[in-house]
Amino acid sequence: MSVFDELNQDVNLKFHYPSSKRIYLSGSRDDIRVPLRMVQQEDTVTQTGSEKNPPIPVYDTSGVYGDSESSIDLKNGLPEIRLAWIDERNDTEILQKLSSQYSRNVEQNSKSAHLRFAHRRMPRRAKNNQAVTQMAYAKRGIITPEMEFVAIRERMNLDKLNSLPEYQKLLRQHQGESFGIPMPLCPQDITPEFVRKEVAAGRAIIPANINHTELEPMIIGRSFRVKINGNLGNSAVTSSLSEEVEKMVWSLRWGADTIMDLSTGENIHETREWMIRNSPVPIGTVPIYQALEKVGGVAENLTWEIFRDTLIEQAEQGVDYFTIHAGVLLRYIPLTAQRLTGIVSRGGSIMAKWCLAHHDENFLYTHFDEICGIARLYDVALSLGDGLRPGSIADSNDEAQFAELHTLGELTQKAWQHDVQVMIEGPGHVPLQRIRANMDEESQHCFDAPFYTLGPLVTDIAPAYDHITSGIGAANIGWFGTAMLCYVTPKEHLGLPEKEDVRTGIITYKIAAHAADLAKGFPAAQLRDNALSKARFEFRWQDQFNLSLDPERAREFHDDTMPAEAAKVAHFCSMCGPKFCSMKITQEVRDYAAKQQAMQEKSIEFVKGGSNIYS
Amino acid sequence: MSVFDELNQDVNLKFHYPSSKRIYLSGSRDDIRVPLRMVQQEDTVTQTGSEKNPPIPVYDTSGVYGDSESSIDLKNGLPEIRLAWIDERNDTEILQKLSSQYSRNVEQNSKSAHLRFAHRRMPRRAKNNQAVTQMAYAKRGIITPEMEFVAIRERMNLDKLNSLPEYQKLLRQHQGESFGIPMPLCPQDITPEFVRKEVAAGRAIIPANINHTELEPMIIGRSFRVKINGNLGNSAVTSSLSEEVEKMVWSLRWGADTIMDLSTGENIHETREWMIRNSPVPIGTVPIYQALEKVGGVAENLTWEIFRDTLIEQAEQGVDYFTIHAGVLLRYIPLTAQRLTGIVSRGGSIMAKWCLAHHDENFLYTHFDEICGIARLYDVALSLGDGLRPGSIADSNDEAQFAELHTLGELTQKAWQHDVQVMIEGPGHVPLQRIRANMDEESQHCFDAPFYTLGPLVTDIAPAYDHITSGIGAANIGWFGTAMLCYVTPKEHLGLPEKEDVRTGIITYKIAAHAADLAKGFPAAQLRDNALSKARFEFRWQDQFNLSLDPERAREFHDDTMPAEAAKVAHFCSMCGPKFCSMKITQEVRDYAAKQQAMQEKSIEFVKGGSNIYS
Repeated sequence: MSVFDELNQDVNLKFHYPSSKRIYLSGSRDDIRVPLRMVQQEDTVTQTGSEKNPPIPVYDTSGVYGDSESSIDLKNGLPEIRLAWIDERNDTEILQKLSSQYSRNVEQNSKSAHLRFAHRRMPRRAKNNQAVTQMAYAKRGIITPEMEFVAIRERMNLDKLNSLPEYQKLLRQHQGESFGIPMPLCPQDITPEFVRKEVAAGRAIIPANINHTELEPMIIGRSFRVKINGNLGNSAVTSSLSEEVEKMVWSLRWGADTIMDLSTGENIHETREWMIRNSPVPIGTVPIYQALEKVGGVAENLTWEIFRDTLIEQAEQGVDYFTIHAGVLLRYIPLTAQRLTGIVSRGGSIMAKWCLAHHDENFLYTHFDEICGIARLYDVALSLGDGLRPGSIADSNDEAQFAELHTLGELTQKAWQHDVQVMIEGPGHVPLQRIRANMDEESQHCFDAPFYTLGPLVTDIAPAYDHITSGIGAANIGWFGTAMLCYVTPKEHLGLPEKEDVRTGIITYKIAAHAADLAKGFPAAQLRDNALSKARFEFRWQDQFNLSLDPERAREFHDDTMPAEAAKVAHFCSMCGPKFCSMKITQEVRDYAAKQQAMQEKSIEFVKGGSNIYS
Repeated sequence: MSVFDELNQDVNLKFHYPSSKRIYLSGSRDDIRVPLRMVQQEDTVTQTGSEKNPPIPVYDTSGVYGDSESSIDLKNGLPEIRLAWIDERNDTEILQKLSSQYSRNVEQNSKSAHLRFAHRRMPRRAKNNQAVTQMAYAKRGIITPEMEFVAIRERMNLDKLNSLPEYQKLLRQHQGESFGIPMPLCPQDITPEFVRKEVAAGRAIIPANINHTELEPMIIGRSFRVKINGNLGNSAVTSSLSEEVEKMVWSLRWGADTIMDLSTGENIHETREWMIRNSPVPIGTVPIYQALEKVGGVAENLTWEIFRDTLIEQAEQGVDYFTIHAGVLLRYIPLTAQRLTGIVSRGGSIMAKWCLAHHDENFLYTHFDEICGIARLYDVALSLGDGLRPGSIADSNDEAQFAELHTLGELTQKAWQHDVQVMIEGPGHVPLQRIRANMDEESQHCFDAPFYTLGPLVTDIAPAYDHITSGIGAANIGWFGTAMLCYVTPKEHLGLPEKEDVRTGIITYKIAAHAADLAKGFPAAQLRDNALSKARFEFRWQDQFNLSLDPERAREFHDDTMPAEAAKVAHFCSMCGPKFCSMKITQEVRDYAAKQQAMQEKSIEFVKGGSNIYS
C-alpha cells in the first residue's frame, strides 16, 4: 500500500457541516455549477405557534470534500470542471513534451517515482503566444465561464433570496464605509459583467491557470468579499508530503480561499503536483524558494535561467499565482541597513543577497517582461512580493518599504500591458495608526490592483498569539480595501503550524475578513450575523452552533459547562442559570411595548371618535 | 484542614516570571513602593565582541504574588499598604459595628462559618459625611499618596531610563494619533500633579475604596495606559469559592488591571471578602446581582432598601467600584422592543423587569443622589452600566443605546457634584465602521469620563472565538480613547470561563490594550516591541520569550517544532531551516551599506582634497 492509499484512508477527506446542505447554483450553461452551503435552521417556537427560519447561505470553499455525494480519490485528482471552458476557447494547445528541463528530469527520477502523481496530464499552453488570461478576455469584452462562476459565487443566491419574505428582516444591514471603493449596492449588482469590468480594470483578479482545470474559480478584488489565504508547505526541518495534502484539505474545510505552497524541503515538485490535482482553490507559490533548492541553497548561485525553468515547471503544473520579489532593487537594499529588523521576507533576503553578491540589479526586475511573457501563456497571476516589508513595528512604513511599493506599481502597469493579472503584497508589522497609510499608498501607486497583506501585526510583543495581533490589523486593512488577507497562525515566529494551528489561523482570518465585509458594507454580509444572533436570542443552541464559523468548537465549549443534551434546548444558559435570564425578560418588554402601542392607538381612536365616552 | 489551607497549598500562589526581577520604585515617602518588573536580557554577541542589552521594564499587576521574596497566606490577606495613608488623612473613622443589616446577619450565620475570612477588620467610613474620594482631594489640590503611586506606576521608571545611552535606540517610537486626547509627550510629563488634574477633571479615576487597604493603586483614564478588566465569579450553575480566588490570582499573573466579581450563586459575600482581602488590584461588582439573590431571584421584589443595604455591605468590605444600571429609564425600555436581541445586559434586564412590573421609574435613577452619598463615604467609584447595550451587530448604536448613554452623562455630572469618581460602560456588539461613533458620543455626552467597554465584538458569527471578534473592536476603541477594556474569553455566549480561558482572554486584551497604547502614542509604549524585535532579529530566543506577554506559551510553541535546547541558541529557526536564513543576510546588507558609505566618504574626501590622485 502506497503512502497515498494510506492518505486516502487516514485523512478525513470528506466532512459534513452540521445541518448543512450543499447545493449548486447553475449559470447560463449546464456545466457552471457553483457550490453553496445552506445552513438549515429549526423553527422558532413561541406561545402562539411556531415560525419557520429560512436556511442561510454560506460561501463554500470546501469543493468536493464538502459534498457528501461526491467520491474522492486523491490518486485520481478532482474532476476537471474547467476543461470544456478552456477547450472551447480554442486558444490553447496540449504540449507534446514538458517545457521545463527540470520537470523532464523529475519524470525520469526513479528515486521519487513512488511519490509521483500517476495521472499526470500533459500541460496546456497558449497557442501562438496568444494572451489567454482572464484579463485579456475581460479587456476584449468577453465574459468567460470563470467570470460568470465568480459572479454567482459572490452573489450566493442572495439576488433571489432577498425577495422572499422570510429573509426580509434578516437582511437588515448597517451602512458601510468603503472609503471610495466602488461597492455593489445589492446582490443583484454583482453581475458577470460587473466582474468582467473589474478584471479588465485590474481592480480584481481571478487566479486560474489553464492547467488547473480542477479549480472552482474565485475572485480577489476590493469590490468583492474579502478573501483569506492559508500558507502551507514542508520545510527542510519538518513536515512530509502527505501531511501537507492533509493540511490543505483541512484548510479548505475551515474556509481558506487560496492556499500558498511554501515548501522548501524535499520533493517540492511532487508535493505541489498532488496539491494542485486535488485542490478546488487557487494554489500560489514563491518560485524563488524552489529555485534556491536547485542551487543547493546558495542564493548567489541563482540564475535567470534556473528561475525561468522553475516558472515554466510550476506554470505547467497549474500554479495559479506566483509571488515575484521583483521590487527589491539594488539601490533599495541599503535603505534597510538601519532598520531594527532588516529584511525579514525570505524572498526579499534571497534577492538582496543575490544583488549584493553580484553587485547587479535584481534579475526578477530586469527580466520582468519575460516573466510576464511566461505568465500570460498559462494565465498565472503575479503576486508582486513585498521583499522589504517591515518585520517589526519600528520598521513600519519606512522608506525601503514604500520605495519598493512604488516599484511594484511600475511593474503592475507593465504586467497589465501583457494582460497579466496582478496583485500586490503588503505588510507585515504595522501599528494601528499607520495601517491606513499602507492602503492609501498602495491604492495610489499601484492603481487599485488588489492588495494582499500578511496581517499586519499591530504589536510585536505577543509571540504565540500572533494570529490575534495580526487579526486586528487584518480586519482594519480589509475594511480599508485590502482584497485578500494572508493568515498568520499562533506558531508565527516560533515554528511551523500543525493542524490545530491552521484551523485557528483560518478561523481568525475568516473573522477578520467578515468584519471587513460588514464594515465596508458588502451587500447582505450581515445576514449570517443576524441569523446567528436571532438563534442565540431564541435559545436555538443548535442553530447558533451551526451558523458559526466553527460549529464543533462552539458545541464543545458549550458542553464544557453544560454537557447534557437537554441543556442545548433549555431556554437558559450557564451564564445566568435557570432562575434568571435576560433573554426571557425581553419577551415581556415586547408585550409591554405592544400593550403601550395598543393603548396609544385606542386613545387616538378615542380622540378621533370625538372623545365621547358614551359612544 | 479547611478549604483555605488546601487553597494555600493547591493554588500556585507564587509565580516567577522568567528572567525577571521585581523591583520597587520609591516615591516621596518610604511607604510608597511601586512594583515594577524588569526583564533581564542576554548580551548580543557579534563577530567583533558583545553588546549589553538593558533590562526592559514591564507594568506589573501581580502584587505580592509576583514577588519572590514575599510570603503569602490567603487566610491573613495581603499587607495593608494604604493603611497609613488613609489614617493620616484623619477624615475617616473605624466603625464599631457593621452598617449593613445583611452583613451583621452573615456574621452570625453558623452555616457559612467555615467559609468566613477569619481576620475580618471592622470597616472604615468618612467622618461627618466628609468626601474622602480621590476626586475630592484632587479638586482641593491635594496630591494623595495614591496619586503619586499611580504616577510612578505609569512612568515605569522611563523618566530615568530614557536618559541612559543603552535605551536610546530602543526608545524610538512612531508618532501616535490620539484624536484630541491630551497625551503626555514623554514619561517625565506623567507627574503626580498631572494625575491630580486628570482626576479632578473627571477624565481619570483611581478606584480605591478606603476599606481596600491592600490595594496597589492604579488609574483608569484616556491619558494613561489602557487597562483591562477580567470578569470572574461563581454562578448558580457552577464554580466554587476557592476556584474564584484561584482564578483571581491567575488573572493577576497574566496582567488583569482590575477584577470584577460577578458572582450570582452561593456565598457571594464570603467569596468577595476572600477576594478583596487578597487582591492587590481594584475589585468591581454589580451590586444588583447580589440584591437579586436576596429576593430569591425575583426582580420585581427588589426594593431600594435591599439595594441600599447591599451597597453598604459591599462598600464596607472594600469593593472599589460598583456597576450601577441607573440609565435604564422606563421610557427607554420600549425602544428595545424591535431589536433583534432585545436587552442582553443582565443588570439592564433586571431593572427593565422591575420597571415594567411596577410601572415605575428605575429606582437606581430616582435614588441616584443617595447612591452617590454612599459611594463618597467609602470612595467607591461608580461604573455607570450600559443596561441597554447592543447584543448583536444589528442592534448597535441604536436609539435605546444612545438614549441611555446620554442619561449616563447626566448622572456623571450629578456624581461629580458629590465628588464621586465615575466611569461609563460601553458596548458590546458593534461593527468596525460604527465603533468610532461610540467613543465620540461618550466623549461628548459624558464629558470625557473614562469609557469602559466590553469588546466590542465586530461580528456575531464566531462563538468560541469571541475573544478575537471582541479583541479587534477593543484595540480600535482603545485607540480612539477608551480607558479600560473588559475582557471577553473564548467561552463568551457558551459557558463560564475556566483557567485557560481566563488566560487567553487576558492575553488577548493585553494585546488590544498595548496596540491601543502604541496607536495613541503613549510615551515609550514601543520600548517592549523594539526590545522583543531586536531579540528576535538577533536570535536571542530566550529574550524573545521572556519579553513576550506569555513566555510559557511562546517557549512551548517553539519547542513543538524544535524541542532541543540547542535550537534556542541556534542562529536560525524552524521556518527556514539551517541552510538559509533571512536574518543572517541582513548583516551582509549592513556590511555592504557600511562599505558603500565608506566609499562615498572616501570619494568626498578625495574631492575635498582637490581630486589629486597622487597626494
